[in-house]
Amino acid sequence: MMPWRMGEGDPQRDAEGRLRNLLAIEGLREGEILEILDSAESFLGIGERTVKKIPILRGRTLVNLFYENSTRTRSTFELAAKRLSADVLNIAVASSSASKGESLLDTVDNLLAMQVDGFILRHPEAGAAHLLARHLGERAWVVNAGDGQHAHPTQALLDVFTIRHLLGPISERVVVILGDILHSRVARALIHALSILGCPQIRVVGPRTLVPPELQGLGVHVFHELEPALTGANVVYALRMQRERMDSQRLPSLEEYHRRFGLTAARLRLAEDNAVVLHPGPMNRGVELSAEVADGPQAIILEQVTHGLALRMAVLARLAGGNP
Amino acid sequence: MMPWRMGEGDPQRDAEGRLRNLLAIEGLREGEILEILDSAESFLGIGERTVKKIPILRGRTLVNLFYENSTRTRSTFELAAKRLSADVLNIAVASSSASKGESLLDTVDNLLAMQVDGFILRHPEAGAAHLLARHLGERAWVVNAGDGQHAHPTQALLDVFTIRHLLGPISERVVVILGDILHSRVARALIHALSILGCPQIRVVGPRTLVPPELQGLGVHVFHELEPALTGANVVYALRMQRERMDSQRLPSLEEYHRRFGLTAARLRLAEDNAVVLHPGPMNRGVELSAEVADGPQAIILEQVTHGLALRMAVLARLAGGNP
Amino acid sequence: MMPWRMGEGDPQRDAEGRLRNLLAIEGLREGEILEILDSAESFLGIGERTVKKIPILRGRTLVNLFYENSTRTRSTFELAAKRLSADVLNIAVASSSASKGESLLDTVDNLLAMQVDGFILRHPEAGAAHLLARHLGERAWVVNAGDGQHAHPTQALLDVFTIRHLLGPISERVVVILGDILHSRVARALIHALSILGCPQIRVVGPRTLVPPELQGLGVHVFHELEPALTGANVVYALRMQRERMDSQRLPSLEEYHRRFGLTAARLRLAEDNAVVLHPGPMNRGVELSAEVADGPQAIILEQVTHGLALRMAVLARLAGGNP
Repeated sequence: MMPWRMGEGDPQRDAEGRLRNLLAIEGLREGEILEILDSAESFLGIGERTVKKIPILRGRTLVNLFYENSTRTRSTFELAAKRLSADVLNIAVASSSASKGESLLDTVDNLLAMQVDGFILRHPEAGAAHLLARHLGERAWVVNAGDGQHAHPTQALLDVFTIRHLLGPISERVVVILGDILHSRVARALIHALSILGCPQIRVVGPRTLVPPELQGLGVHVFHELEPALTGANVVYALRMQRERMDSQRLPSLEEYHRRFGLTAARLRLAEDNAVVLHPGPMNRGVELSAEVADGPQAIILEQVTHGLALRMAVLARLAGGNP
Repeated sequence: MMPWRMGEGDPQRDAEGRLRNLLAIEGLREGEILEILDSAESFLGIGERTVKKIPILRGRTLVNLFYENSTRTRSTFELAAKRLSADVLNIAVASSSASKGESLLDTVDNLLAMQVDGFILRHPEAGAAHLLARHLGERAWVVNAGDGQHAHPTQALLDVFTIRHLLGPISERVVVILGDILHSRVARALIHALSILGCPQIRVVGPRTLVPPELQGLGVHVFHELEPALTGANVVYALRMQRERMDSQRLPSLEEYHRRFGLTAARLRLAEDNAVVLHPGPMNRGVELSAEVADGPQAIILEQVTHGLALRMAVLARLAGGNP
Repeated sequence: MMPWRMGEGDPQRDAEGRLRNLLAIEGLREGEILEILDSAESFLGIGERTVKKIPILRGRTLVNLFYENSTRTRSTFELAAKRLSADVLNIAVASSSASKGESLLDTVDNLLAMQVDGFILRHPEAGAAHLLARHLGERAWVVNAGDGQHAHPTQALLDVFTIRHLLGPISERVVVILGDILHSRVARALIHALSILGCPQIRVVGPRTLVPPELQGLGVHVFHELEPALTGANVVYALRMQRERMDSQRLPSLEEYHRRFGLTAARLRLAEDNAVVLHPGPMNRGVELSAEVADGPQAIILEQVTHGLALRMAVLARLAGGNP
């Protein structure tokens, strides 16, 4: 449950210190994030054209290596790669058939021998993408598309991209993150990204079992009631409530959670007038937010998906060495 | 079992009345069908070239969204899209993991946010493609690639294309449809398409339990014996006999069905000399037709497949707005 | 278990005697193999370019028709086809859902009607690719990508390619094949390929139950102890030991096998100084070879994978009629 700790050296960077892999938000520099966001802005228009394709990664081979089924994540990366004109090889490995660790690296060694350029890795185990990056060295790059509860950095990048695109600089916005902060890779990465970009106030809110006071140490403001957390907010980021939290007795019931922490239209009026509502999807309507909010004008959840595609194009183009 | 009924408005058309989606044969105009058939004629030659590819949908993104496994249908649509140079995203949703209705539209909303251009939808529930079309509005188009027992309109279009391509205008041909008319989406759509194109005589034939006399109301001639139905026919369309009809006691046995209604070489001689035999595939040799007929010179079942690819290219090109 | 015997005519060739399909090494001429190897040399450099793509099969449609799951083989053929700019249709048929024989040919007839150019077939039954080739005639070509224990000819071609690429002409090399020669399609095909290319000495070594003395008839030297077989060898080819051999009582235990026949660093020193170690993958470290050998400098197992991709490009380009 604890964040995966990197060993010596920085597996995200090459010997010259340049970004080589995208494994986690931790360790990224503000300038690098801004460059990626700027590049994503330039890719955003491509999806609106009739011909949604540019040739910058033509003839490169990218592998979608998925040890977990995630149609949505696989689809965005596949479309991002195809719109950059790369060839995409989809490999779905049933977790049952994969004996961990060795199997991943053996599979990768074979694909490397086929001269592929990079990997988009989804894996149920925390640290799998770091393990792969260390193994690859300079031979190919890897994007972490989710490794257990550890990291999913393109999600946080698309989130800050979306906020900046709609509201302007992060350094002028108050952001509220609502839900199970303790177990969420999305929340952890978002807090890091917001911090790096100079967000002046990051608030986290939820029950004590899921938002322990110790989080204060991360530089965030901890709330255990929703109303004061929302007052003056520009951005409300609702996390998906995992059903298993109920089973583990950290929450009494989904109804009780919604009653105390559900984002309703009435509560949202406590935030600033132009406040936006984000969610990593898929939503539990009636749990972390009401259907009225989910489908209302302040929710920009589908914009996040659109931005996510542009952001992933920017990441793939950067790691694969193409220039937009 | 009854045909799905559309609500108000015509979900196949945009506000200006132009064909926007292909959901069912019902509601298509003769001129529209003829335009699609003419366009398919022009695409037919592409499959015979060495380079089977034209650039008219380059950079468009088409989604093969399949909630039912159908390798054959998926393959033709995928090849049709690729030969038009579109990018294709294959998404197979196991019906077990899909909670109906909401799940489909949520999945689609995410794909729309990825700026895809159109959907090819296969779904086990009647009306799914209409539901999707209403949801999409002007944002993207949809081709119904089979929704339960309701519709599968590209099948009927390729059938009339095949008849016209080989025998000339539909308005001069006598067509016999043989089998389970009552439960067949193929039969219903074909009857509509033939009627729209002015077929002077459509005959349906099979046992009373599967070809009830009330069908007369659709403008077809009902027969319960095969021999008189075949006399003078130019086209014999044999439907696939579903095994489940036996279980439901609508048929005594496959052997008994074949004895009374199986299309044998001897019976086929009752039809016109140049009569052709069609079948939607896959065939039950020895049930709805004998192996001799299935593999004989009058059977044009594989031509249907070839024509189906050209026809689907024509449909995709039209809906995606490309001109051949 | 016995090699599949061809009937009359040569299903690998067209009426003019030109290579039409690649089904097995048996029956290939030395000149043909050398042409394929030379062509593969020219393709080897493409994988090292930034743009790993040449247009020679643009607009052709190739079908990866897999009745057995083999991610590795499917991936190399898919990448080979894509780097030649062909369109690839992946079809995975669960063996459970396929009723043998007829089903394969029916599926193929439908794909042929979609005007595909060629098939890459993987099938659990020996002889399936020959059956398909006879069925296809001049209509399309087929590459056998593994049919039961019968043949997998691109494996043997990549093996001789690798030996020639690294050590020079086969006609000057002593090759040792180690393991279960009796049941191995890899061994049988390699022996044929080496013979055709004039290898002066092919040695096979393993326990009597897996390397019966009758093999002498194939023109190979039979050994039942590893040390004398290795002396003077330039190439050691270790086969994968199948676990099922233990069950069938042909081997006492994997430990016992490794003790007597495992290729260790100490034993490898008996071979020539620059001797190379090949393996068809995936390896059982600690069974047919020690981890030290598997990961040591003489093992060229990943080079085999790289060469396999270039070799498959050469085969596809030749059968599809494109010239490099």
